[in-house]
Amino acid sequence: MIVVVTPNPAVDVTYRVARHERGETNRVLEVQRRPGGKGLNVARVLAGLGVEVLALLPLGGEAGRWVAGELAVPHEVSPLAGETRTTVTVVGEGHPTVYTEPGPETSEAEWAAFGEVLGRRLADAELLVVSGSLPRGARAGLLGDWVRAAHEAGARVLADVSGPALLEAAEAGADVVKPNLAELLEATSTVAEEEGATRLRRRGAGLVVVSRGARGIAAHTPEQVIEIPAIPNVAGNPTGAGDAATAGLAQALVDGVPLVQALRRAAALGAAAVLRPVAGEVDLEAYRRFLEPNGEPA
Amino acid sequence: MIVVVTPNPAVDVTYRVARHERGETNRVLEVQRRPGGKGLNVARVLAGLGVEVLALLPLGGEAGRWVAGELAVPHEVSPLAGETRTTVTVVGEGHPTVYTEPGPETSEAEWAAFGEVLGRRLADAELLVVSGSLPRGARAGLLGDWVRAAHEAGARVLADVSGPALLEAAEAGADVVKPNLAELLEATSTVAEEEGATRLRRRGAGLVVVSRGARGIAAHTPEQVIEIPAIPNVAGNPTGAGDAATAGLAQALVDGVPLVQALRRAAALGAAAVLRPVAGEVDLEAYRRFLEPNGEPA
Repeated sequence: MIVVVTPNPAVDVTYRVARHERGETNRVLEVQRRPGGKGLNVARVLAGLGVEVLALLPLGGEAGRWVAGELAVPHEVSPLAGETRTTVTVVGEGHPTVYTEPGPETSEAEWAAFGEVLGRRLADAELLVVSGSLPRGARAGLLGDWVRAAHEAGARVLADVSGPALLEAAEAGADVVKPNLAELLEATSTVAEEEGATRLRRRGAGLVVVSRGARGIAAHTPEQVIEIPAIPNVAGNPTGAGDAATAGLAQALVDGVPLVQALRRAAALGAAAVLRPVAGEVDLEAYRRFLEPNGEPA
Repeated sequence: MIVVVTPNPAVDVTYRVARHERGETNRVLEVQRRPGGKGLNVARVLAGLGVEVLALLPLGGEAGRWVAGELAVPHEVSPLAGETRTTVTVVGEGHPTVYTEPGPETSEAEWAAFGEVLGRRLADAELLVVSGSLPRGARAGLLGDWVRAAHEAGARVLADVSGPALLEAAEAGADVVKPNLAELLEATSTVAEEEGATRLRRRGAGLVVVSRGARGIAAHTPEQVIEIPAIPNVAGNPTGAGDAATAGLAQALVDGVPLVQALRRAAALGAAAVLRPVAGEVDLEAYRRFLEPNGEPA
């Protein structure tokens, strides 16, 4: 089983407007609400692939109850006193406008309770995936604790996190860290991918996988850099494509396929997610088609 | 007792941002959530004045549960299948930007159930106040039904509504209708206040009270127009000032004070609401001070 942690889930609200003016009252024509957060997208894609998965997430308030009620993947909730955050995206004229709430203030006691749930669930897990930002009040060291707890339980760790959490995951010896290029350069204070990946490996990360968006995906091992180009001519909604790629990597890790095949799955799933209008969904038929040239069954 | 109906309540969310750009991701620094809707503001002001009040409102979904949990005034909820709407106001740079959700689609069966609750509550009421817009799916004629139900129960009616609902309230013989000037002109297809008020009275309205914002408040009777200027030199947050004025009128109706005093209370409460940053609250000390020149105890 794969346990997927979403440290800072959200209610993702999309407002469709005809006219959109700053400083005015804008009538919303259509409202969509979805449980959001990178880890939930990863869990949804894994479930869609038929992988046994458990989403583990802290939730609070009515927004948290709403998220729990909407989740279609197996999940366990660790309660928070604060209200789960909401993200509002306004679409219509021009580029989407996004408002991101800071999220609830969390306490050490809440994370201790979360750690207990995680520990219990790791007993049955082959892999722990941690994906997305941490809420306010999450102390430094939390991510390292989770990595060590997974290893003690005999599970490997794939961390798709950024900032100080990325460095922590590396230092605690995460088996795979998967930043995108911007996150890698920012966290390691470098300007070149290879140097950044080297720094993460020196800190303790096993494998550093870097998603480069339209320029594909690369894995940095001590011996080599394996690069897989992006699937060409895929247009659509790139939101959640990185999370689908993470799901592909996670499934490949559990299946024990060679690294180059794991990266191909990640690239193909990322492209298959672009074809779907909603983050957390993939076009499974397109996914199989994208893998075919490599002769690998999906 | 005063029964205050809020046909289309909301979760009022305020986002404070430092920077606000359309087409960009805007980080929200502070989130405030409050139960919203004109009738709820009226009920809160009445409760603050020590008036016995019951807020009656349809609510649905997690947002509806949240509103019910936050309400500090006595209330009864009539359930909806749809999700209660949210209104997002972004404040920071320049004028506030507002996004208004359309609200839940409501059904005839839900309004029939609401009518039963209303009928039960009207048995103990001296006055019914209906304030604010109606949600989608609310059929034409609903407001007229409520006015007639109140009269049959021996209660008077004050309607602060707009559009076709304003005409319906007048036709059903609402004792007081209280549009603002723009709502009056729009609903009656006129360009002059006096003509608009005359049209509403001809349809059946008892008294037509028009709030003119900074230009005060006026009552149109068959015999005369009584005008009360706004309290001068009051700066602050005008949101909810009209609702506070409605509360002042409602209290005056129940107390049976002369019309000119009722209007003075409305004007003073409207001004006292401007002094508070939050709709539904009034500065009671300022209210008493604003009334003093007229020698009337609050």
